[in-house]
Amino acid sequence: MIKVAVNGYGTIGKRVADAILKQPDMRLIGISKTTPNYEALIAYRKGINIYVPQQSFKKFEEAGIVPAGSVEELIKNADIVVDATPNGVGAQYKTIYRQFDRNAIFQGGEKADVADISFSALCNYNDAINKKYIRVVSCNTTALLRTICTMSKVSRVEKVRATIVRRAADPKEVKKGPINSLSPDPATIPSHHAKDVNSVIKNLDIITMAVVAPTTLMHMHFLDITLKDRVDKKDIIEVLSNTPRLVLISSKYDANSTAELMEIARDLRRDRNDIPEVMVFEDSIYVKDNEVMLMYAVHQESIVVPENIDAIRASMGLMSADESIKITNTSLGILKGYLI
Amino acid sequence: MIKVAVNGYGTIGKRVADAILKQPDMRLIGISKTTPNYEALIAYRKGINIYVPQQSFKKFEEAGIVPAGSVEELIKNADIVVDATPNGVGAQYKTIYRQFDRNAIFQGGEKADVADISFSALCNYNDAINKKYIRVVSCNTTALLRTICTMSKVSRVEKVRATIVRRAADPKEVKKGPINSLSPDPATIPSHHAKDVNSVIKNLDIITMAVVAPTTLMHMHFLDITLKDRVDKKDIIEVLSNTPRLVLISSKYDANSTAELMEIARDLRRDRNDIPEVMVFEDSIYVKDNEVMLMYAVHQESIVVPENIDAIRASMGLMSADESIKITNTSLGILKGYLI
Repeated sequence: MIKVAVNGYGTIGKRVADAILKQPDMRLIGISKTTPNYEALIAYRKGINIYVPQQSFKKFEEAGIVPAGSVEELIKNADIVVDATPNGVGAQYKTIYRQFDRNAIFQGGEKADVADISFSALCNYNDAINKKYIRVVSCNTTALLRTICTMSKVSRVEKVRATIVRRAADPKEVKKGPINSLSPDPATIPSHHAKDVNSVIKNLDIITMAVVAPTTLMHMHFLDITLKDRVDKKDIIEVLSNTPRLVLISSKYDANSTAELMEIARDLRRDRNDIPEVMVFEDSIYVKDNEVMLMYAVHQESIVVPENIDAIRASMGLMSADESIKITNTSLGILKGYLI
Repeated sequence: MIKVAVNGYGTIGKRVADAILKQPDMRLIGISKTTPNYEALIAYRKGINIYVPQQSFKKFEEAGIVPAGSVEELIKNADIVVDATPNGVGAQYKTIYRQFDRNAIFQGGEKADVADISFSALCNYNDAINKKYIRVVSCNTTALLRTICTMSKVSRVEKVRATIVRRAADPKEVKKGPINSLSPDPATIPSHHAKDVNSVIKNLDIITMAVVAPTTLMHMHFLDITLKDRVDKKDIIEVLSNTPRLVLISSKYDANSTAELMEIARDLRRDRNDIPEVMVFEDSIYVKDNEVMLMYAVHQESIVVPENIDAIRASMGLMSADESIKITNTSLGILKGYLI
């Protein structure tokens, strides 16, 4: 049983913590929190150990949350830490992880050089085995890599051109915008996503463009993939249907937008309405000779959760890719084939 | 002096009418309106003749607007009609234009076969000379065609792949959505824009994908153009700088979103904040061998206005492309080079 700590308990941290609680081979020893907000209170009520900065003990106690200890103690008590602190803060914490000689999983908001390897379970799990520091790439990059590595089972991926329409903010973020604008992010090409994909698949010819749209639900990607060989649409649908962590959305049931996908997640009683699978609009799949175009939606809040779980097993050298991915998918109810 | 009628006085119609008022060789004989709303009242106060359906005379008079006559009279009094009625209604009106033997300019909401030719001034003006019925393609297609035909001055355009992020509604449309969703439009590939481009440039290898985002200000396009020859970025910037109806946005002045472009239009005191020029984010221009990628914004309410003016001159056989485009640009204050 690996003892896992989650440092940072925001959008990603709380989901990774819940996912750890569902793993047969892991024990969540606690999470860290800097402010005693609603997320801290709900975690505390669930019996999760809350570790806080030394200077914040009083603040938490006043809010009715008795800390289990300091953040340093949390790290010391763990075999491995999932760092889900805000962008850039993980790099600062690395000093402490190193001081206590703890393995750590970082998020995509950190620079690639924070870790020994950037990670996507379907692409390079085995290269990450026994790596002390692993960085799970960001939500958009995770979606790109899952899709590209899945396509590569059909034919070698020679070129990728992608437009990423990003959500402006997560549903809980009330201070971010835009609310009525399309904001290129950045107004230069390529966006950082191409480089981030290259941190996992070196030398892939990929160029990405990104724009922020005023929505909170999901990102969407518009991909143009050039394969080595001519392919049939049915081969693409087959490989997408048979790969867990990607699901197809049929137009048959009138779910043609991110809002309707979210409604499906609610009706299916998914935890927090999460859909960690890449959601491919089946009818969008368009094949012309060796070129495949498609559209999919990315639930930014949850997509990296299964990759974080796999990264823990890879870092600890517990098992192979296939074994870990299978346990993660089963424990989290992650599908393949049609979402409904 | 050509006598021009504008049938339909909504988003496009009112702008075309104002543009006609600025042309040295045209006279606006009147516009048609079916309801005496604020647009009708403001037009009436400006002294524009309002023609209305026979059965609506009383309704208009009660609203303080004295009709100049019926819609049939408007058509009869004109040499040419610009049809700016809602999508699909133009095809019904064609019977009446034909009955009175009047030339007509249709909008992109009509099917291509409504007219003798689909039109983009920078692409095929001369083919449209003396054509009785001309269809000005839609806002998105107009932007695509302006850009593609401009690029073709540098090298033959061999392939275009585009993602179109559409605005959900015009600013005045209060009953449309989505308000918090990305809605593929449609969730199939290609979107109709590719076919519409092919209505002007036959046989171009173009595939488009479209999605609606919850914003009202502008569309944005993300283009990947493959040219016959390798090109330099400076050649692309040069041709874009030297073509009126396309302008460059420099990142120097921090206008990196559609909201900020709109603010520039307001600060420049553009009529109705309109920017009929395609607005290219200069720093987005990315060249890799013979491949050019770029991002631009499209002001859906006004972009087709200059094309409608040119289409009138082409249909009436008044002058060549170069002459008409020059007069249209000068009269409407349409720029080339940098927006600011």
